[in-house]
Amino acid sequence: MNLGVIGCGYWGPNLVRNFNTLGGCTVLGVSDLREERLKFIGDLYPNIEILTTDCNEILRHKQIDAIVIATPVSTHFALGMKALESSKHVLMEKPMTATTEQAEALIETAERKNLVLMVDHTFIYTGAVRKIKDIITSGDLGELYYFDSVRVNLGMFQHDVNVIWDLAPHDVYIMDHLLDKTPRAISSTGVAHFDSEIENIAYISVRYDNNLIGHIHVNWLAPVKVRKTLICGSKKMIVYDDVEPSEKVKVYDKGVAYIQNREEVYDILVQYRTGDMTAPHVELTEALNRVAREFVAAVSEGRSALSDGHAGYRAVRILEAANNSLRQGGKVITL
Amino acid sequence: MNLGVIGCGYWGPNLVRNFNTLGGCTVLGVSDLREERLKFIGDLYPNIEILTTDCNEILRHKQIDAIVIATPVSTHFALGMKALESSKHVLMEKPMTATTEQAEALIETAERKNLVLMVDHTFIYTGAVRKIKDIITSGDLGELYYFDSVRVNLGMFQHDVNVIWDLAPHDVYIMDHLLDKTPRAISSTGVAHFDSEIENIAYISVRYDNNLIGHIHVNWLAPVKVRKTLICGSKKMIVYDDVEPSEKVKVYDKGVAYIQNREEVYDILVQYRTGDMTAPHVELTEALNRVAREFVAAVSEGRSALSDGHAGYRAVRILEAANNSLRQGGKVITL
Amino acid sequence: MNLGVIGCGYWGPNLVRNFNTLGGCTVLGVSDLREERLKFIGDLYPNIEILTTDCNEILRHKQIDAIVIATPVSTHFALGMKALESSKHVLMEKPMTATTEQAEALIETAERKNLVLMVDHTFIYTGAVRKIKDIITSGDLGELYYFDSVRVNLGMFQHDVNVIWDLAPHDVYIMDHLLDKTPRAISSTGVAHFDSEIENIAYISVRYDNNLIGHIHVNWLAPVKVRKTLICGSKKMIVYDDVEPSEKVKVYDKGVAYIQNREEVYDILVQYRTGDMTAPHVELTEALNRVAREFVAAVSEGRSALSDGHAGYRAVRILEAANNSLRQGGKVITL
Amino acid sequence: MNLGVIGCGYWGPNLVRNFNTLGGCTVLGVSDLREERLKFIGDLYPNIEILTTDCNEILRHKQIDAIVIATPVSTHFALGMKALESSKHVLMEKPMTATTEQAEALIETAERKNLVLMVDHTFIYTGAVRKIKDIITSGDLGELYYFDSVRVNLGMFQHDVNVIWDLAPHDVYIMDHLLDKTPRAISSTGVAHFDSEIENIAYISVRYDNNLIGHIHVNWLAPVKVRKTLICGSKKMIVYDDVEPSEKVKVYDKGVAYIQNREEVYDILVQYRTGDMTAPHVELTEALNRVAREFVAAVSEGRSALSDGHAGYRAVRILEAANNSLRQGGKVITL
Repeated sequence: MNLGVIGCGYWGPNLVRNFNTLGGCTVLGVSDLREERLKFIGDLYPNIEILTTDCNEILRHKQIDAIVIATPVSTHFALGMKALESSKHVLMEKPMTATTEQAEALIETAERKNLVLMVDHTFIYTGAVRKIKDIITSGDLGELYYFDSVRVNLGMFQHDVNVIWDLAPHDVYIMDHLLDKTPRAISSTGVAHFDSEIENIAYISVRYDNNLIGHIHVNWLAPVKVRKTLICGSKKMIVYDDVEPSEKVKVYDKGVAYIQNREEVYDILVQYRTGDMTAPHVELTEALNRVAREFVAAVSEGRSALSDGHAGYRAVRILEAANNSLRQGGKVITL
Repeated sequence: MNLGVIGCGYWGPNLVRNFNTLGGCTVLGVSDLREERLKFIGDLYPNIEILTTDCNEILRHKQIDAIVIATPVSTHFALGMKALESSKHVLMEKPMTATTEQAEALIETAERKNLVLMVDHTFIYTGAVRKIKDIITSGDLGELYYFDSVRVNLGMFQHDVNVIWDLAPHDVYIMDHLLDKTPRAISSTGVAHFDSEIENIAYISVRYDNNLIGHIHVNWLAPVKVRKTLICGSKKMIVYDDVEPSEKVKVYDKGVAYIQNREEVYDILVQYRTGDMTAPHVELTEALNRVAREFVAAVSEGRSALSDGHAGYRAVRILEAANNSLRQGGKVITL
Repeated sequence: MNLGVIGCGYWGPNLVRNFNTLGGCTVLGVSDLREERLKFIGDLYPNIEILTTDCNEILRHKQIDAIVIATPVSTHFALGMKALESSKHVLMEKPMTATTEQAEALIETAERKNLVLMVDHTFIYTGAVRKIKDIITSGDLGELYYFDSVRVNLGMFQHDVNVIWDLAPHDVYIMDHLLDKTPRAISSTGVAHFDSEIENIAYISVRYDNNLIGHIHVNWLAPVKVRKTLICGSKKMIVYDDVEPSEKVKVYDKGVAYIQNREEVYDILVQYRTGDMTAPHVELTEALNRVAREFVAAVSEGRSALSDGHAGYRAVRILEAANNSLRQGGKVITL
Repeated sequence: MNLGVIGCGYWGPNLVRNFNTLGGCTVLGVSDLREERLKFIGDLYPNIEILTTDCNEILRHKQIDAIVIATPVSTHFALGMKALESSKHVLMEKPMTATTEQAEALIETAERKNLVLMVDHTFIYTGAVRKIKDIITSGDLGELYYFDSVRVNLGMFQHDVNVIWDLAPHDVYIMDHLLDKTPRAISSTGVAHFDSEIENIAYISVRYDNNLIGHIHVNWLAPVKVRKTLICGSKKMIVYDDVEPSEKVKVYDKGVAYIQNREEVYDILVQYRTGDMTAPHVELTEALNRVAREFVAAVSEGRSALSDGHAGYRAVRILEAANNSLRQGGKVITL
């Protein structure tokens, strides 16, 4: 399987490196508008045949089977559509597209042409999130109550997208993957402290059925780096702290039982339960390696990838609604 | 100065203890509906003359100059009004009242009768918050950008008020005290996981002029105890962690400079600045002792207290609007 | 059962409070050389019959069955011996005595007169240490490899004993209780930075059979408070952090397997094993309450207490040897 | 300046990478006994001319000006001596040699032949240790009281040297660099839990004049990774935590004043002082890059390096004495 990579900024070289370690997989060409990035990747990987500033050379290359798109989000749709129309399988960086319409069009094209369309939702391939998914699937958490995620640090300010489109995609696709539910309403508040168009702090609330709630705080202007997610169920609660070097996932055997006295309506008894905390061993292999393997496997097995176009669409839908709410001063958007 | 204390639950004995340590100040009577609480406080302080289940004995006692009200919030207004009408100075527990109308009526009565009306906004009397207030007042933070507070833990579920009225008052009055600004719009989302009327998790967004934003996360159903506030300015940023035993306030000399190239409109340069972090020494004397001293001083000097009725009103106004938003599914409430 | 308490400094009132909560147990008298301490305890507990500066009034009182000695260690032996000779059961503060000879004499007297002699080794009655003891006893740790304890903070400098006699008793009796082994050799280094007789920092090494080693670092001159103990076995390892508010005990399913290739002597393979970490739920009831109950139970059941005179002796033996080594510049003392 | 690197295990490639980034500096050849390591480095850096299993090819190469020795410590002396005798400047990995005699012989040869002899004491080139050195040199700490370092984690067990020779070199050379004092006596205890010759846990005490004490705990068998150093002075105290991602150095304005009442000899008053804690901004550039630059600068300027042969000797002297004490059951070794 031969790959072409479009976009060689911060993330592109990581993709090249990981695909290169897979057997039966060759990165044939890389394109970027910047000559210096092509030189950089060429020095690192002298075997790459094509280094070009014209992405069409990659998109139309006969021997290339699949395209990896690691460019700014505003270009994802056009590049992805060209690739699919050239009958290439596509792996796109997150967020999949700038609008839900674009995501739908890509999905439709990929399905019509029977091609793999995958989105690089990296974190769902980490040992930590896979462990949490296992715990939720096993039923150990019980009924899900809330998902609360904080992703803040100083910088990196983006020039083309706000903090919702830059940082929140991670929380949104992790939330979508773990909860596996359809959001009903979204609201978001945020502020642009420097550039009136580019919000640098935002809060997103997501309502699901059955009193399940999600909340995300993303922020480019915080003095400390925080990546902390609480996932609370009726039986157990999880703290996922991605900054923690070794104990990223902590499972608390804690809960509340709400016992209503049948005879006396107003007599409600709350019982607190506190048991052990366990930090399960979490695999530390690089998530991007699993992304690369999943893409190659989906192509060779002719099946959907775990983070397929539909997963990409669902994430974009939440981001789009959050952004719409933000621009309307926090108005609740019903989905 | 003779005091009467109405309500002797969790907080009442702490108030009695602190007023007792002040010279020239005597707790003459305590009332509570529960005999066992009266016995408890009587055993601890045998010198209290009046222990009664009838609060009117306290409210009308000729020798009592001031009343401390430490009962559930639903009773604050009626008790406070009676006390003021009996020409007693009043110190009320937070939140001051259940509605802004009630707060206004108490303020009007106190001002008309020239009595001190104070609210026990305990945290603004802590060494940590006083230090932060000093830093903000000195201008060291620069222009204020945001206030973000998280107050979560497991329990204690209340039977009469939701988590906004139970936990958020602290964050709201600290925010009001530190920012010293008038909120313009408030929205809130939250969920009641057990009792349909009593929300146990809530998020509150508060918009101020000049792109200042406040956000509060309160939660009775979290596996870990968090009391962490970020206060960000254009020059420095503060992390206030009340769970930290010794270094509660950390001041980060960090920031972002946004430099717009005058000639090329789209060329904006973001510069990051990282300097020292300082955890200033913070006084550890009990805040409630300062509350008691402030009340006695305000009465004897015939002046307003730092946390007077107006401060109480401002906090209730935010809580009321947040609650209204919550009940309307997150609708933005303009103030 | 009637008790007399000798010594009413920092710890005495805690002992009085805990014994008072036990049914069938009355604190009849308290003695202290300082009138103000007697007034303090008398105000707190008006039912104490005898408040005296003459400890003999307590020691010889006919109705007193048992004596609690909470005075400086230099007086423990004389007071304890008088109490035993007056046929009183005795509970002594740690460390039991200033020398092993004194400890032996007290044990001999108590056994001859069939009296309970107990030492207040408080920490072995905490939920944390009891949980660790259970884990070790169950065999879950495997063969014990080492015990490493750090107990450092700023102050409180003592005027009569050095940091070994002040802080190390806790680590020494916890180590003795958990390891349940006889030390073979002890060495210690330390420095007195202010007063040439009173060392304020010390390190103690304790050698046991079978390559088991203990090490203790005690220090009055550290900028941060640390109370952290590592207990390592062949199967699992424990970190006990007493400063941690909620997760004091962490059990790591980690280890090393050392596989020697039989054919090639020099070919040794080390295999590392990393599994889950578990922080078991630990009971948070006050340890001193369990101490009081154990003393009363030992007296009424006519049995030895868990921390009896022999446990006290074993701790003093290590402290004495460590102090001797310290004074000889770190010379190894064989026991 | 042309370099040859001998030894291409874990550290060698890092040395090659850093020297390659310096202008005017070329890595001409690399030798290693293992073909696969030569292939590995050759793939990474195709410009390296000589890849050989025979180190003599490097040592005798006419165009090579300087040799970097990154082999096991047992080979350092022989390789270093050959390099110096071939008139090459030498940079050696830590620890410099296996014995003080070897270190002395290398120093003598280098000085006689006027060659640079430097040891890669990496950590003294980190932003953190350079900041601490500045603080000590400025006098801000006051008189130095103690240096206490803990370096523990799980693995990597070595087959040829014990934990003292593997982990303690870092603490020893940092201590030597920061204290800048001559040790007077050393004792060490430790245990080999698996291989009778290879201790995996050790404690080292180092006595200096004027009541200054150093202590090091190194351990291959701990469940958590700790790299924490306390450096205490009469005016301030430092905690250096190398595991901390951002605030590695914390300076505590804390201390104790010991006031002896002149009239009453036994009346000593201890006063505690607690001020701000400051975590100064610490440069995060790679220390090894500074090592490489220092070596090149020392060669081109014909001067001694900061971590020259004498610094290497002083570290080996402490390690050798600690090892001797360890083998004699903790006997105090006077220097």
